[in-house]
Amino acid sequence: MMDSYVHGYKGQENERLRDQAGALVELLHNDTTYPAGSRVLEVGCGVGAQTLILARRSAGAHFTSIDISAESIKEAEHKAAAAGLTNVKFEQADIFDLPYKAESFDHVFVCFVLEHLARPDDALAIFKQVLRRGGTITVIEGDHGSTSFCPESVAAHSAIESLIKVQEQAGGNALIGRQLYPLMREAGFHDVRVSPRLVYADGSRPELADAFTRKTFTAMVEGVRGSAITAGLIEPQRFDEGVKALYRAAEPDGVFCYTFFKAISTKS
Amino acid sequence: MMDSYVHGYKGQENERLRDQAGALVELLHNDTTYPAGSRVLEVGCGVGAQTLILARRSAGAHFTSIDISAESIKEAEHKAAAAGLTNVKFEQADIFDLPYKAESFDHVFVCFVLEHLARPDDALAIFKQVLRRGGTITVIEGDHGSTSFCPESVAAHSAIESLIKVQEQAGGNALIGRQLYPLMREAGFHDVRVSPRLVYADGSRPELADAFTRKTFTAMVEGVRGSAITAGLIEPQRFDEGVKALYRAAEPDGVFCYTFFKAISTKS
Repeated sequence: MMDSYVHGYKGQENERLRDQAGALVELLHNDTTYPAGSRVLEVGCGVGAQTLILARRSAGAHFTSIDISAESIKEAEHKAAAAGLTNVKFEQADIFDLPYKAESFDHVFVCFVLEHLARPDDALAIFKQVLRRGGTITVIEGDHGSTSFCPESVAAHSAIESLIKVQEQAGGNALIGRQLYPLMREAGFHDVRVSPRLVYADGSRPELADAFTRKTFTAMVEGVRGSAITAGLIEPQRFDEGVKALYRAAEPDGVFCYTFFKAISTKS
Repeated sequence: MMDSYVHGYKGQENERLRDQAGALVELLHNDTTYPAGSRVLEVGCGVGAQTLILARRSAGAHFTSIDISAESIKEAEHKAAAAGLTNVKFEQADIFDLPYKAESFDHVFVCFVLEHLARPDDALAIFKQVLRRGGTITVIEGDHGSTSFCPESVAAHSAIESLIKVQEQAGGNALIGRQLYPLMREAGFHDVRVSPRLVYADGSRPELADAFTRKTFTAMVEGVRGSAITAGLIEPQRFDEGVKALYRAAEPDGVFCYTFFKAISTKS
């Protein structure tokens, strides 16, 4: 599992996740709050980027935040402690072998996790099991196929395509955002409501272009340079040309668009 | 000019435009109203699909709605009369030879027009000229490159690509939505604010899937079948496979996404 995390576990990756969380907080999480006393399972918390946001927004809820990486859990714990959070319990756990009884949680929160799993349908079935009836599940995923930008660049699309393939070869699915509705329906969730969240960065939003276009998306593409080239998915020169074009889209006369999908359902 | 309108002037096309207008009214126009007494120029009104919406929403404003097609103007006039609208004056006119003095209008409204022009920058400069200082310009355009759907289909992307090329060969640009910000800045509009409007249709929104995925977008792709095949842009079998896949995305377990871009600026 750990080795298949396509974005790696380096310090630079953590930096990327922090920037991403900062820029996207409002867009992705402004409608996520949990009642006081409710038990929330956060799946795949990583280094705690989303955890801090969730736990602050719902100070009366009790969070159990899990990740398969002991190292990430350790860093998340440090950060939560430094932030003075007392409503989060971090635990190292495997999604496919959860140490929780059925219906243990009032809510389940899953963000940027299903995209990395070979069996997202099985994972959803497991989440459904630990969720009580009447409880909610929230799933947030990106979709690299939703990327568009200007100036247009074929090389940039090739570089993004190589990232999609690297993730696919690692057993994941970088186009999963658009598939959340049918996936969750198939997993037995009824009344699934999906809302797309489009990040749009142009010259009037230089901070977003910097935080998202440069430091989140393009940094993520750059992160698979070695794997993509080693796997023979793209030529080094073409990859670099594509990355350059993505940076170009973050300039004052460039534009960058990316769509996240947020799905919410109540277990009936 | 007339011959280059990629979607044609047939009855089926008018049907498509009406469906589109109906399904997208709220998404595209909910924040467009003009003060009583203001003079609004609507450019490229076609058969009046948007005109009726605009004129009803701003009953006190005076609209001048123009189109290069006398036939379309005639139909628009009939529809406006049937709807009892008295605040719209329809006129046949060429964007590049406008019969209006400088600063004649308080507001200019342009919807699904720039995508068909070989010189959108020149058109914007002309619109700027007939607009008074302190007046606003509103531009709405689609972007076929923003299309994503599931199940995934390479043939569907090829069919969409053939539509983009047909439009390109006719001198237009089907990817213009994402380019509105730099285009309007280059035309001398400052303080340009662009907001993307994403249409998302899944199984929980069957009416939208029908009105937009089937009757608007897929119908538009189907509309260029002859031109695309004659121009050698795609094989008939592949085109038909692609169209079938787009209809497939409108089924209850399918998903379809498309992004429109709305730009607003005040002439300084």
